[in-house]
Amino acid sequence: MPSSPLPRRAIIREVGLRDGLQSIARVVPTAAKLEWIRDAYDAGQREIEVGSFVPARLLPQLTDTAELLAFAQTLPGLKASVLVPNLKGAERAMDYEAELMLLPISASHAHSLANLRKTPDQVVEEIARIRDARDARGSKTTIEVGFSTAFGCTIQGRVEPDEVVRLVEAVLDAGAEAIGLADTVGYADPRMVRSLFEAVLPIAGDRLNCGHFHDTRGLGMANVYAALELGVNRFDACVGGIGGCPHAPGASGNVATEDLAYMLASMGIETGQDFDALLALRKKVATWLEGETLHGTLWRAGLPRTMKQEALS
Amino acid sequence: MPSSPLPRRAIIREVGLRDGLQSIARVVPTAAKLEWIRDAYDAGQREIEVGSFVPARLLPQLTDTAELLAFAQTLPGLKASVLVPNLKGAERAMDYEAELMLLPISASHAHSLANLRKTPDQVVEEIARIRDARDARGSKTTIEVGFSTAFGCTIQGRVEPDEVVRLVEAVLDAGAEAIGLADTVGYADPRMVRSLFEAVLPIAGDRLNCGHFHDTRGLGMANVYAALELGVNRFDACVGGIGGCPHAPGASGNVATEDLAYMLASMGIETGQDFDALLALRKKVATWLEGETLHGTLWRAGLPRTMKQEALS
Repeated sequence: MPSSPLPRRAIIREVGLRDGLQSIARVVPTAAKLEWIRDAYDAGQREIEVGSFVPARLLPQLTDTAELLAFAQTLPGLKASVLVPNLKGAERAMDYEAELMLLPISASHAHSLANLRKTPDQVVEEIARIRDARDARGSKTTIEVGFSTAFGCTIQGRVEPDEVVRLVEAVLDAGAEAIGLADTVGYADPRMVRSLFEAVLPIAGDRLNCGHFHDTRGLGMANVYAALELGVNRFDACVGGIGGCPHAPGASGNVATEDLAYMLASMGIETGQDFDALLALRKKVATWLEGETLHGTLWRAGLPRTMKQEALS
Repeated sequence: MPSSPLPRRAIIREVGLRDGLQSIARVVPTAAKLEWIRDAYDAGQREIEVGSFVPARLLPQLTDTAELLAFAQTLPGLKASVLVPNLKGAERAMDYEAELMLLPISASHAHSLANLRKTPDQVVEEIARIRDARDARGSKTTIEVGFSTAFGCTIQGRVEPDEVVRLVEAVLDAGAEAIGLADTVGYADPRMVRSLFEAVLPIAGDRLNCGHFHDTRGLGMANVYAALELGVNRFDACVGGIGGCPHAPGASGNVATEDLAYMLASMGIETGQDFDALLALRKKVATWLEGETLHGTLWRAGLPRTMKQEALS
C-alpha cells in the first residue's frame, strides 16, 4: 500500500448548519445562524454549508437557508454550499446563485429508499436532469454529489464497494463535477477508507475531493488520516462534533471542526484556521444548542504547549 | 512514505490496573482488581499490566501488586507485566517472577527530573544495573523500556526526535530487550508517530514493539493506525479509556481497550477479544470507579450491523 506525501493544505467545510442542525429538532434563530457563519468565516473557514433547500415541512429548522446563503455571499472568498435533494431544490439553489450545491445519493439501496424514496439509480437520473437544467440556464452553480452510507448502512448493513464504484461512474456520467464519500453512520475504519478511496480515485481523479466522516465509533480522525495519505485534502466537519444519525441514537456526530483543524495543523497541513476563534464559536454553539450533547476534545484539553511555542516563535 | 501491509494479528496490553489507577486517587479493593484481571483474561486479553512496584507511600492504590501478579500467574497463557521505576522495584518483580517488567524512561529531561528525580542518562545507568542484576540471578523476567513523553512534554514542551533516538540506542546498549514509544500527554499526531517510529525502527528492529497513546486530543486511534502501517502490532490500552496525566487536568486517558479492539477487528486484524465480555468488564470498572469520567465510544454506539452480520455468518 504505497502512500503519497500528505497534502500541504486542506479545506475544512463547516457543515454544522446543515448536517448538524438537521439532526436536532430545535430551531436555532436566524440571527444566531448569521453570527455562526460570520464567526466561522472570521475563524478562517472558507467553505460553509449553510443549509438545505428541502420542503419546510420536512426540516422546519432549515427554512432560512436562502437568507443565510445571501449573507454568506457578502463575505469575500467564502464558498457557500447548500444541500439539495432533487431538481426542485437545485432550481432554488441556482435561483439564489449558490456557488455549490451538494446532491446526496445513498450507496445503500435501503437507505436511499428510506431517505429519498428513490432508488440510487433514480437519483442518478435526477442528477442528470439537474445537470441539464444547470447547463440550460447557464448557471454557475457547481454540482457536487455526496455518497451517503458509502461504508455501510444501519438499515441494509453491508454496502458493496463495487456498488459504490458503479454508482460513482454513473454519477460522473450524469454530469457531477465533484464527488465525496461519506461514512454517514460511523461504520468506516481506516483500512476501508483507504480501500474505497483507492478504488474510486482512478475513476474520479481530482473530482473525488471530499471525505465526510462521522465519529460514532471514535474513528473519525483515523479515517481522515487514511484519506489524507491518499492525497484527499477536503473534509466536512461540524463545530462541536454535532450531527448524528436518526438510525444510531446517542451516537456522536461529524468529526469536530476544531479537533480536525488541530490534527491538520499539528501535522503541518495548512487550513488557515484560528483556534481561539473556533473555540469561541464552539462556546456560542453550545449556548444556542443548550441541552444537546456536543463532542470533541480540544475545547477541554487545549493546544499542546509545543504548538503554543511554535505560534509564539 | 511507503507503508507495509497491516499486521494480521495484534496484541492489546491492558494497562488500566496500572496506568489507569495510578492517576485516580481512590483505592480499588483487591477483590475487584482480581475480578478485573479474570474478566479481562476471559475477554481474551493475554497481556495485562497488573500494577507497579513502587513505594507504597507514593501510590497507595497499587500496594497489592504482588497479590495481583500471583493471581495473574495462575491464568494459563497470560503474560503479566509490572512497572518498576528502579533496581529496587526490579528486584521485587524478579522475586515474584513477573514475566515482564516495564521500566519507564522519560525522553523529556524535565519530565524525567519531575517524575523520577533522575536525568534520562541516570535512568539508562539504572537500566544497565537492572540488566546486570537480572543476568546475575538468572531471572527470566524480560526487560521492556517504555519511552514516556517521546512526542512532547507538558513541562518541557518539545522533545527532539534525535534525543529519543539517542536514548533508544543507549537503552538497548544497556540491555533492554524490548522498547515502546509513549505519547504520555497526548501531543502526538499520526505524522509524528510515523516519523518517530521510522527513525527508531532501523535501530531497534523487532525490539520496538509497543505503542502507548493517550487520547487527550482525540488522536489516539489515528496514532495507532499510523503505527500499524509500519508493522507495529502491540499497543497499550485501558478499559473505559481511563488514565490521564497529572499535567493535563480533565484530559482523557489512554485509548479505550474496547474501542481499540473494535478498530482492529473492523480492519480484519485478529486480537482474540470478545466485545460483549469487554463491554461487560467496562460496566464493572464504571461501578468500581463511580464518579470518575470514563471515555470511549463503543459502549454507547455498539458494534456496526455489518460486524454483527459477520459474527453470525
